[in-house]
Formats: sequence, C-alpha cells, structure tokens
Amino acid sequence: MAANAHLTRCYDFCASHRLHDGRMSEEDNQRIYGKCNNPWGHGHNYRLEVTVAGPVSESTGMVVNITDLDRVVMAEVIEPFDHRNLNTDVASFRERVPTSENLLLEIATRLSQRWAREGFDGKLEKLRLQETGKNFFEYHLP
Amino acid sequence: MAANAHLTRCYDFCASHRLHDGRMSEEDNQRIYGKCNNPWGHGHNYRLEVTVAGPVSESTGMVVNITDLDRVVMAEVIEPFDHRNLNTDVASFRERVPTSENLLLEIATRLSQRWAREGFDGKLEKLRLQETGKNFFEYHLP
Amino acid sequence: MAANAHLTRCYDFCASHRLHDGRMSEEDNQRIYGKCNNPWGHGHNYRLEVTVAGPVSESTGMVVNITDLDRVVMAEVIEPFDHRNLNTDVASFRERVPTSENLLLEIATRLSQRWAREGFDGKLEKLRLQETGKNFFEYHLP
Amino acid sequence: MAANAHLTRCYDFCASHRLHDGRMSEEDNQRIYGKCNNPWGHGHNYRLEVTVAGPVSESTGMVVNITDLDRVVMAEVIEPFDHRNLNTDVASFRERVPTSENLLLEIATRLSQRWAREGFDGKLEKLRLQETGKNFFEYHLP
Amino acid sequence: MAANAHLTRCYDFCASHRLHDGRMSEEDNQRIYGKCNNPWGHGHNYRLEVTVAGPVSESTGMVVNITDLDRVVMAEVIEPFDHRNLNTDVASFRERVPTSENLLLEIATRLSQRWAREGFDGKLEKLRLQETGKNFFEYHLP
Amino acid sequence: MAANAHLTRCYDFCASHRLHDGRMSEEDNQRIYGKCNNPWGHGHNYRLEVTVAGPVSESTGMVVNITDLDRVVMAEVIEPFDHRNLNTDVASFRERVPTSENLLLEIATRLSQRWAREGFDGKLEKLRLQETGKNFFEYHLP
Repeated sequence: MAANAHLTRCYDFCASHRLHDGRMSEEDNQRIYGKCNNPWGHGHNYRLEVTVAGPVSESTGMVVNITDLDRVVMAEVIEPFDHRNLNTDVASFRERVPTSENLLLEIATRLSQRWAREGFDGKLEKLRLQETGKNFFEYHLP
Repeated sequence: MAANAHLTRCYDFCASHRLHDGRMSEEDNQRIYGKCNNPWGHGHNYRLEVTVAGPVSESTGMVVNITDLDRVVMAEVIEPFDHRNLNTDVASFRERVPTSENLLLEIATRLSQRWAREGFDGKLEKLRLQETGKNFFEYHLP
Repeated sequence: MAANAHLTRCYDFCASHRLHDGRMSEEDNQRIYGKCNNPWGHGHNYRLEVTVAGPVSESTGMVVNITDLDRVVMAEVIEPFDHRNLNTDVASFRERVPTSENLLLEIATRLSQRWAREGFDGKLEKLRLQETGKNFFEYHLP
Repeated sequence: MAANAHLTRCYDFCASHRLHDGRMSEEDNQRIYGKCNNPWGHGHNYRLEVTVAGPVSESTGMVVNITDLDRVVMAEVIEPFDHRNLNTDVASFRERVPTSENLLLEIATRLSQRWAREGFDGKLEKLRLQETGKNFFEYHLP
Repeated sequence: MAANAHLTRCYDFCASHRLHDGRMSEEDNQRIYGKCNNPWGHGHNYRLEVTVAGPVSESTGMVVNITDLDRVVMAEVIEPFDHRNLNTDVASFRERVPTSENLLLEIATRLSQRWAREGFDGKLEKLRLQETGKNFFEYHLP
Repeated sequence: MAANAHLTRCYDFCASHRLHDGRMSEEDNQRIYGKCNNPWGHGHNYRLEVTVAGPVSESTGMVVNITDLDRVVMAEVIEPFDHRNLNTDVASFRERVPTSENLLLEIATRLSQRWAREGFDGKLEKLRLQETGKNFFEYHLP
C-alpha cells in the first residue's frame, strides 16, 4: 500500500490593495484598518504555498505532477492577481475587503473548484498566504 | 457561515540564558547540557510565531485584529524577555531550566491567561519558538 | 503532568539524482519527469527537518536531547546521502525513482527503525524535506 | 587610531506603484514596463538597507548610534512611504516614474540632506533597496 | 546628469558535479576535494546574482530593462546549466574542474561575450554564485 | 593568467553580552546603550561571513581550500566565542565594550594574525558580522 505524503509548492505574486469597507464610517475604517486604510492603497509581495496530500504513486514516485499543479495555480491565481490592484481588478473584492484572510478564501474557492474539474488524484489540503515576513495566513480545505 | 482561517504573526526578541540545574552535579549538567552549560551563559535571537484560529469576520475580513495581538504579545512576552537574561530576569526560571521548551511553555501560560482576560474571538492555537536557524519548538494550546 | 511540545531540528545535505524509470519508454520518462530526466542527472541542496513530539521532561526541560538526535540523523541520513548520487550510491534507489517523495519515505523508514532501537522517549512525528526554495515534502509518521 | 567599520541597518515598508510615463504612448508604456504598467498598480514589500561607514568610537564602541539612525530613517523614509501609493502620495513621483531605481535615488536625496543637517560622525555610504526576493538596487553616495 | 545605480537580479538553477582532476592521483583528489570527490557526484541548488551598473535613464527610470537581462541570462546560463551535470553536459568542464570558482568564471565569460554583442547601456559589473547557504563566490568583471 | 575571485564562507555562533562601560555613569550607559545595558545581559545568534580574495588556482580550481578556512575560523572564532558570555569569557572585552563593531574588530585581529602565520595564498579581505536579521557590520582588512 502506498504511503501518504504532503507536497507543498510556493508561488510569488505582487499586488496592491486598500483595506476599506464602504458600509462603515471613515472613523471606523481608520480605527479598524489603521494605515492599511490609506486612501490610495499600498502593496505586498505575497507568497502562496499550496499543499497537496495523497499517496506517493508506485509508478511515478510523486504525489502530484508539479507541472500540472503549476498550470492550475498560474491560471487561477498568478494570472488574475499578479501585478494587480486587488480592489479594482478582482471582481469579488468590489464588495469584500481584500484582507489577506479574504484573499486566502478567494484563492481557496478558485483552486478547489478547478481541482474538482481537473480530477487530480491528490487532495488539495492546505493553503498558506504570506503577506510580509511577519504575517501569514492558513486555510485547511474541507 | 464564516470560514475558519489561521493567522500567524512573528515577533523577535534577544535574550541570554544558561542551561544549568542546581539539583544536579556539575558532571551531570555538563553531560546533559554540554556547551549550553557554560558558566556565564550565552544568547540567542529568538523568533516567536503566534497562531490564532477562528472564523474570518464577515464585517472586518479578519480573524483577529493584529493591533490587538501585538499589544498583548508586547506586554506578555517582548517587554519581559527582550534583551534580558532569562535565568536572572524571569522569576519562573529561578527554579526551572530555561530551555527553549520551558521558555515556550512559560510563554504559553502567559499568553493563554491574558487571552482569556481579553476575551478575543479567535482561539490562541499554536506557538512556535525558533531558537536558531536550525532549531524550533512548537506547542499546541489545549 | 508534563506538557507536550514538538521539537524540530534542521539538517542540510547535497546530493544528485536523475528521475528515470527503466520500465517506461524514453518518451514517457521525458513526458513525466521533464528536465529532471536529463541523462546525466542534476542536484540539490536538500534540507531535512525532523520533528519529535513528547512531554517536556521535568528534570531536563527537554523533549529529546539534541545531541542524541544529531547522532542518529548523522548516521542514518547525512552519512549515506550527503555528497552522494542517490541513483547509484543508495541501494533502494536502484529500483525506485529517487523523487523527493521517495527520498522522504526512505528517510522515514531508516529513522523510524533506528528510533525504535534507540528507545527514545519522544515520538518521531514528522519529517519535512525541502528540495528547493520552492518545493517541500512532508511525511507524518504513523 | 580608530579602525573603520561599516554598519548596515535594515528597514521594511510596503507600498504600491504603477510604472507609467504620461509623456509616452500607451504602446510604449506597455512595451517598456510590461505588467508593471497595469492601470491600477500593484505593490511590494520593500526592504531598505542603510550603510554608514566611519571609525569605531573608542568610547562607545559604535560607528553610529542605531537609535539616531532609526529616528532619521523613520522620519525620511518609513513615515512618508510605508503603506502608501508612491505615484499619488509622494510629490516627486507625480513627474517621475516610481521605478525602484528612482525610489532609491529619492531616498538617497532625502537621507543625505537630513544626514548633513544632523551632523552625524559616520558617513552615509550606501543604500540597498530590495523590491522582491529576486531584485535589488544599490546606490553609493558620493 | 543621471545618477549611477547598481541593479542586481537573482536566478536559480540546479546542477550536479564531481570535483575530480584526471591529472592527479586518486589520493590527491581525495585529499584536496574530500567528499566532493565522491565518484558519482552530488549536486546543488545554485543561486546566481547578476549586477549591472549604469546611469538611471531619465526617460525609463531604469538602469537596464530586466526583460532584456532575463533573456540573456536564460540563454547563456539557465538553459545550458539548469538540471545538468556540469562535468558531462558542459564542454569546458571536461578539462577543468567544475568548482564554484570555475563555474563562476565560465558564467562570466559567457555573459560578458553576450553583453558585448547585445550592446546594452549598463555595465555588467559583478557576479555572485551561491553554492549552499554557507558558501558564495564573487567575480568583479574588468 | 588566473582570474581573481572572492570566496565567502558563513559561520554561526551564539553568545551573550552586556553593553556597559564602567568609566561612564549609569545614566550615560542607559542613554547610550538603552536596553542593551540591561544589568544581566542578553544574547544573539551571530553569523560571521569571511571573504577571501585571490586567483583561482589553475590546478585546484579554488581560491582557498574551505577545509583550511574552516580549521582557522573554528580555532580563532567559534571555539572562543560560541556559547560564551563575551564580557566575562573574552579577555579583551573586560576593558572594551563588546559592541558588534568591537567584536568584529577583535575577530579581524585574531583572523589576520593567524592568516599571516598560516601563509595562505588568498588574501583575507572582508568580514561581515550579522547581529540580528536587521543589523550587520563589515570590516575591510587593510
């Protein structure tokens, strides 16, 4: 019986955002988001780590072929988010604040839908989104 | 229903310590702690990673406000430990050896007590203490 | 009752390998392994992270003595793999493709057998093998 | 006679920018700046390294007091640039493209003017601005 | 007059090599190269940093266009060396030992010849080749 | 004629220190050294980078044999400083403040004296001492 392992692959992208919720007052936005509420936005070098779990194939010695994983992450994450302004360039952030938590959930939705369509053997297990050298966020897929 | 995510925030502090247990002989201290038993101590740049888990708030898009987390970790960890000698400056290490494992448990006790008093929504879930580029220690809060 | 903690120690080694399965055609090898199938091989700086879990000893303040852990990992991993060609210098890779997944499983087998013989208190819990700055692989020991 | 040494201190800030020159055609902007010309901008975690050279003081054992250096860099760089949009929030980038090279020169101008006013002993020698993990830019002050 | 700046761009590649000089005895090879002389070779994740110096263009705000730099380094370094065995796949290492110093000089020769043909404005100034997290090598171009 | 290159090798050690000058008042010590003046000291993980410059040997393909360099740095730096208290365990710091600048100069004196005795071909060119992830210090040997 094949043993299970977990493969993690890292991807980098740069984007800008502004943390601001139009349903709240200026004061509340300032109080909650601080300097992240600056009117013209700011940006980050994000690092996304995608973890896939599954049996190590007896024939290929792999959990998932990295070429396939790269193709999917490029299409669903890097292409739409890299060198973009999250507030204006990503439809779902016109009505949700693009915090790193929400960005992570958005990425989770995109990748899990695509994963189901692709029919990969491994399970999309965990996502980690690093915002700066001091903050990162994780989501465990159901 | 809000999805759960895990936020991790990193903090740095520098401290010195000596691994020595007064109840043991000099020989045993040397055998167990090796060069960490050097009489005058040595030091490290510690990195602490604090992980908080909880639902991503529909209103703020956050698991926990980092400003609140920073305030608590500054008061409970950075202020008492940064630029300190753990053996002499921290009361609980007068009777326990300040290994990184014990330092991690001490931090866990301080943060979880404060966490309960603050009444934050998110759960204090995991602590990771990095001692050097080659060693780190984790504690999963109950 | 002693609290549980998880100690992780990092080890570096350099090795070369070629991803090629003699039972498959040249075309299939190329299609599956891409440039990793290059006839003369290539190499990596691998980083191995070994995690041991267990109670923090009331007497020593440790989960496991790092000196003991180092001795075991040196003998079972660094000595046989460092500055080696995995395909030719490691017996089990004469019939299995030395992907990072398979290398991780090979390390898991070696370390867990040795661990049982040594009779350490802590549990060998998790292994992480980093292949490049963009890929890493994890195995959770049963 | 005191020996000379070089102290380098690192600072992090996040900002967004768009590479676009209003005097050029859309086509030229696209050709030269590629995805960095995206209309709504993108962002980075910048790291600035400031190097000061000078004799190690016989009395303090320092080249320059880091407290003083921090105060100056906070006022001249972190305060005006952190969590900002360089194109809109920084006056000089309304007419110059905020490439990392130009951002570095802008920082050099601000710091060297302030340095002269402060009358520090050490010489402001070199600035390094890291844009991503793959790109950095250096300027040697005259 | 335009100010001068130095742009550095980082590139990663993996390769294997064996340090062995056929003109020396086995004993001398072992004595000089130690475990790097292992018969079947070993490998590394190399990082190459390419530094270009020159005036910051008043029109583009750049020292050199990174797209051009990437194209040249891909053709001269990454394509011929990535996922290769330096001893067998690179002609010049059939008669020279592929130490990191010699690999650096080989890269310097290839890049400076190409640089001259391309006619870039900036000067190819410095190369840094990192072999492991503990060793790197630099060459200053004449 | 052999081309010149620069080899840099990295070494890690942990030590504690207290910044305090007995010839100054308590107030002056506090004002100048701040929390680094804490009575019982603190510590760091130091990283030392040693750069040697010289021709790449036509026969060995090396600037200097790393085995020789390691032997010298172990004896002159790691052995006397690792897991030590700089103030009490290093004679020269009984009368000089062990700032990173002074520690760097002390290392420079030790290494250059030994270098002369060893008669290595390469020149000991530069030392870099990293105190934390945010501070480093360099000394260019005469």
